[in-house]
Amino acid sequence: MDRRNFLRTSAIGAVMAVASPISISAAGHATRKTTRSGRLNMSFMPYELKLNHSFNLARSQRTTTPDVQLQIEYDGLIGYGEASMPPYLGESVESVMTFLNSLDMTQFADPFRIDEIHDYMDSVAPENRAAKAAVDIALHDLTGKIMGQPWYKIWGLKPSKTPDTSFTVSYDSNPDEQKAKIEEALPFNIIKVKMGLDHDKELVDAIRRQSQSPVCVDANQGWTDKEKALEMCHWLNERGCLFVEQPMPKEMLEETAWLRERSPLPIIADEFVRDTADVRRAVQAYDGINIKLMKCGGMHEAHRMAVFARALGMKVMLGCMTETSCAVTAAAQLSPMADWADLDGNLLISNDRFDGMKIVDGKVTIPDRPGIGVKLITPTV
Amino acid sequence: MDRRNFLRTSAIGAVMAVASPISISAAGHATRKTTRSGRLNMSFMPYELKLNHSFNLARSQRTTTPDVQLQIEYDGLIGYGEASMPPYLGESVESVMTFLNSLDMTQFADPFRIDEIHDYMDSVAPENRAAKAAVDIALHDLTGKIMGQPWYKIWGLKPSKTPDTSFTVSYDSNPDEQKAKIEEALPFNIIKVKMGLDHDKELVDAIRRQSQSPVCVDANQGWTDKEKALEMCHWLNERGCLFVEQPMPKEMLEETAWLRERSPLPIIADEFVRDTADVRRAVQAYDGINIKLMKCGGMHEAHRMAVFARALGMKVMLGCMTETSCAVTAAAQLSPMADWADLDGNLLISNDRFDGMKIVDGKVTIPDRPGIGVKLITPTV
Repeated sequence: MDRRNFLRTSAIGAVMAVASPISISAAGHATRKTTRSGRLNMSFMPYELKLNHSFNLARSQRTTTPDVQLQIEYDGLIGYGEASMPPYLGESVESVMTFLNSLDMTQFADPFRIDEIHDYMDSVAPENRAAKAAVDIALHDLTGKIMGQPWYKIWGLKPSKTPDTSFTVSYDSNPDEQKAKIEEALPFNIIKVKMGLDHDKELVDAIRRQSQSPVCVDANQGWTDKEKALEMCHWLNERGCLFVEQPMPKEMLEETAWLRERSPLPIIADEFVRDTADVRRAVQAYDGINIKLMKCGGMHEAHRMAVFARALGMKVMLGCMTETSCAVTAAAQLSPMADWADLDGNLLISNDRFDGMKIVDGKVTIPDRPGIGVKLITPTV
Repeated sequence: MDRRNFLRTSAIGAVMAVASPISISAAGHATRKTTRSGRLNMSFMPYELKLNHSFNLARSQRTTTPDVQLQIEYDGLIGYGEASMPPYLGESVESVMTFLNSLDMTQFADPFRIDEIHDYMDSVAPENRAAKAAVDIALHDLTGKIMGQPWYKIWGLKPSKTPDTSFTVSYDSNPDEQKAKIEEALPFNIIKVKMGLDHDKELVDAIRRQSQSPVCVDANQGWTDKEKALEMCHWLNERGCLFVEQPMPKEMLEETAWLRERSPLPIIADEFVRDTADVRRAVQAYDGINIKLMKCGGMHEAHRMAVFARALGMKVMLGCMTETSCAVTAAAQLSPMADWADLDGNLLISNDRFDGMKIVDGKVTIPDRPGIGVKLITPTV
């Protein structure tokens, strides 16, 4: 039944991305690989995510996000995975499909060989983190299902320790639209704003007129003057902000260290840290890190990063891209290790393929299903 | 059947430790707690380990080692654990039994709550690492059995990456005895020597007359003069040594950093590092760390330490105490993450209670049983 559902949705995916020749080969690929017990059978398809609101970033605006949905079948079980590719990370549907098509997963007879499969994927290509994350998430879903347990339990974590999640509010020049966007964030305990535009203070002031919830700030490398950055940190601190994410360009490590020493708010690394190796350098200039599955290549590395950052005494934030409940719920499994979560990616789209992690009273709530904890649904779109 | 076996062996344990009033209460405790489905039922008993050879250390000699055997029953399954207490770590049968008796494990209805149970144990007493390791190992055995998988698989590790293990040879003033002791180590690919006595060079020379296998050196904090320590490192390097473990007292961090900068051999921390917090300080003076379950409090923390040390670019060594195959096999689950293993503790005793990890052609081989991978046997003693 799951297989039938996938193929049916696969057809939707092919229709959606019909302009691209990749979608044809993707659909072909998905049907070519047949189930063979005892081997890993992988299939995947492009799946364009539809945004509820257009997304205003420092330099662009968009209404859809590219995404690839993946599944690995093994011994009658299906593990689900996903690669979401915000354009600024350098991956595209084409690069993900090309990478995944170059993998021969049938050489593996055991989904538990996570280290080995990552070594193999790294030998095929050094980067392609989102594509690798898709495979990694599907493997974790499979192994968790084989073991009959969700990953937060396997990692020994306490489910009630999950943090509040923030909900992102973007600037809107239309006051009524702005008010509506803030309205949508009110059920959450933390509001996130992305800065680096001309209207940063206006946005925070608008939020403060409607809500006294703590605000966390993502500057997206937007501040290049350290004195002005410090001034802004003070201004934000006076308005009940929690922390500032990636205030300055990732290359400005010394200036960020200077800012961190003086800032009343914790400074969190996002673009600066992708994997464990980066965390080691981050400790000299940042108070914490934002872990995202698509940046680091999956749950295995994300867990290592969380262990590493905790051991270094750093704060841990768990983030996501705009993606379905598949990758968001996979990330949520790790959330009891995080101080803050920014797991709203699935709430921003209208064509989710999965039921999974829920936000209850503003708090991340992990479903009790085994694996990554999702269930395939038919999107209403 | 397992339960019957345990009680039978429990009686042996009680007989063995009959001189001590603790063994009576231990046996009483073991029979008092009855199985109740859905709760963690813990029982334990002292179990004195008999050494094949007397053990010559810098300051003492001994023929037995104190040990406590533990089990946790849950839903018809039994998880095995063990605390071994070499006198220099400050724990005794009495302190372990007192600590374990103070725990109320029946408050927990889920063996997967590893973080939570560690928090609870830490709230009862800050230290007692070996006692906590016993509980932690039993929980991992239980959860692994519930999931039907050995822990190396759950951790995503590749079983063929297990390292060679070293076998310890101690000095003997009788040349025939010395020869026999070295003979016993010949099947292993690495020979370990404990230094700090007057006969260090004699011992290495005696080994080199019988074997060209690499030798690793444990100085047990024995060297207090950094210049002499450096000289010794050069001498050992010329004789094919791999590394030196804890050359200087753990308090001499600056001198160890000085030595590390100049030594041709890697300097590994043993007494200096007990847990993750210590690893963070170790990186300034040591090239690697020796992880032992009894020092750090169990498999959960040991795995974190291995992840942390690897992320810091440090070497990882996996050690053990003189203990049964229970704790040794639990440690072996982590061994694919280690550069070197020193997992010979079970080979040094004549009354092992378990079948578990094997050394095949000098290499650690993890059994394919779920959990920590051991099977209870009746010792032939």
